[in-house]
Amino acid sequence: MSEKKVVSIKDIAALSGVSIATVSRIINKKGRYSKETEKKVMDIIESHGYVSNMAAKSLREAKSHTVGLIVPDISNDFFSTISLHVEKFFADAGYSVFICNSANDSEKEKAYFRTLDSKLVDGIICISGLQSLPSDLTPRNIPIVCIDRYPENDKNIPIVSSDDTMGSYLATEHLIKKDCKNILFIANFTADYNRKTRYHGYEKAMKDYNMDIKKQNIIYLSGDQPSYVESEVQISNMIQNGYEFDGIFASSDRAALGALYALKRHNIDVPNKVKIVGFDNSLYSQLPSPSISTISRNTTMLAENGSQVLLDMMEGKTIENHRIIVPINLIERESSK
Amino acid sequence: MSEKKVVSIKDIAALSGVSIATVSRIINKKGRYSKETEKKVMDIIESHGYVSNMAAKSLREAKSHTVGLIVPDISNDFFSTISLHVEKFFADAGYSVFICNSANDSEKEKAYFRTLDSKLVDGIICISGLQSLPSDLTPRNIPIVCIDRYPENDKNIPIVSSDDTMGSYLATEHLIKKDCKNILFIANFTADYNRKTRYHGYEKAMKDYNMDIKKQNIIYLSGDQPSYVESEVQISNMIQNGYEFDGIFASSDRAALGALYALKRHNIDVPNKVKIVGFDNSLYSQLPSPSISTISRNTTMLAENGSQVLLDMMEGKTIENHRIIVPINLIERESSK
Repeated sequence: MSEKKVVSIKDIAALSGVSIATVSRIINKKGRYSKETEKKVMDIIESHGYVSNMAAKSLREAKSHTVGLIVPDISNDFFSTISLHVEKFFADAGYSVFICNSANDSEKEKAYFRTLDSKLVDGIICISGLQSLPSDLTPRNIPIVCIDRYPENDKNIPIVSSDDTMGSYLATEHLIKKDCKNILFIANFTADYNRKTRYHGYEKAMKDYNMDIKKQNIIYLSGDQPSYVESEVQISNMIQNGYEFDGIFASSDRAALGALYALKRHNIDVPNKVKIVGFDNSLYSQLPSPSISTISRNTTMLAENGSQVLLDMMEGKTIENHRIIVPINLIERESSK
Repeated sequence: MSEKKVVSIKDIAALSGVSIATVSRIINKKGRYSKETEKKVMDIIESHGYVSNMAAKSLREAKSHTVGLIVPDISNDFFSTISLHVEKFFADAGYSVFICNSANDSEKEKAYFRTLDSKLVDGIICISGLQSLPSDLTPRNIPIVCIDRYPENDKNIPIVSSDDTMGSYLATEHLIKKDCKNILFIANFTADYNRKTRYHGYEKAMKDYNMDIKKQNIIYLSGDQPSYVESEVQISNMIQNGYEFDGIFASSDRAALGALYALKRHNIDVPNKVKIVGFDNSLYSQLPSPSISTISRNTTMLAENGSQVLLDMMEGKTIENHRIIVPINLIERESSK
């Protein structure tokens, strides 16, 4: 047997003592067979290197060569750029990608999981707004990978994300080193997950540099209006109330832009009187004058790592690392010169 | 018969002289039946108002309640905003939407048509880069609607688009009325279709106001680099060569932004020395200082009109108007004050 280059399905059937049809059903995971028979056949298959190639090929051929991608808001730069890279990765690998916009609605997100599953996609990448992923999301139990945000769950779902806390730490530290003495933190409305991780980075940097964290310096945006509108209103109110500050770290570029608008309107010089750092490296920080310093998440790496892990899972490979952290960095621009 | 509120499938079978199973196959367009039988049954069905409701319901129930949306570049603001509105429209109507990114690649676009069709979507909205839509794109011959760009074709595919020529006319006329005497036209690299329609608007306005169209005033971008980069290089070269101009109409906001960068770098005052108008009303015109005047296409109306037409087609309604033009308007900002 060890001399034989190709082990046929007939050989496996003979070795297992079952019919060829049964082996086929087990390899393709279609139709009826008992747990006992499955174990017997899979043991035979696994003990023969050549056969597992054949099994892999069979599994491959059973695929629909389509992948689902669920994003919370396709009109957001960050998510649409990730979508672009995921699409490119899978197109190169011979897959079509169906992008679904969950609109930050958890019921809609669950429905998209089910719909994608019913369309027999081979796997799903999800930027999830769910607190936890219910175990019955995909009846066929297909591979799932989370990017960026992730639900708490006890399943072994691989996660590819940025070190948001580190990003917030770098932003806050940058302002401290630029001699800012009273630094506001604007918490953008997103999933609680993001709000906490970014706040924690601010908190840690402040503590490490022995700076007081004042309650009135933490500004929460409700999400009821676009964040740059809410941010402009809140910062304007603080200025009008005579509250003085010299640094702002906003946990999103849009919120940072709103703060810049408020300061400009009150003729407060940025960066000479107040320095600003945003988060996202989106057009909202790139295009204004002064341009806004920001934290850049690596969308290409997030997308490509997430896609590679999903592809590996779909090809039956074992995933060693269920938690991939992608580097994050500070981009210095005019607003914090 | 006219007194009867509900005409059953049994009645139709009896009236047609065929079996109930045959009527069911014909209504659901599944399985085998002859053209003759189909005509006979459909004639009976059509002559009874109540029955057509039943047929509609059957057709409705045969649906997968999924729709495909093919876009050329999901990372482009304009397309991702349309995607958002299409998704919202169909979610409200009880449909899931699969967004596919064709990456401006016509082979990929064709492949997505086939993949979506194989996944039994009920219809497809396409922002197409194809010169013409081959008749065998979707073997099941499902409803298709084009938004924005459209291929030349002899099929009756409904098209919802903006009046780009009118938009370009308005932009050019605005610069003329602001007393610009030598107006450049920057043609962004896109499908030939767009390039021609936008140029025609510039050409028509120039002629209507008896202005010369100079060959050296028409600047073509190749698409080899991001358009704001190409635009900045070309406008910088013109400035360095001592060529004088006082107005720029760029057929995309990105190209307009590149022109603004070139002028700023050479300390040429916008709008006092040179006025600029872009096209798209994207973040590229909204965020810079000075903000850039632009032509706004109505993404909400494009998406909603296109979605409504597709829904009507999927519900078997007759489409009267195969060519819907959505209004376009000029937004005046700081760059042309």
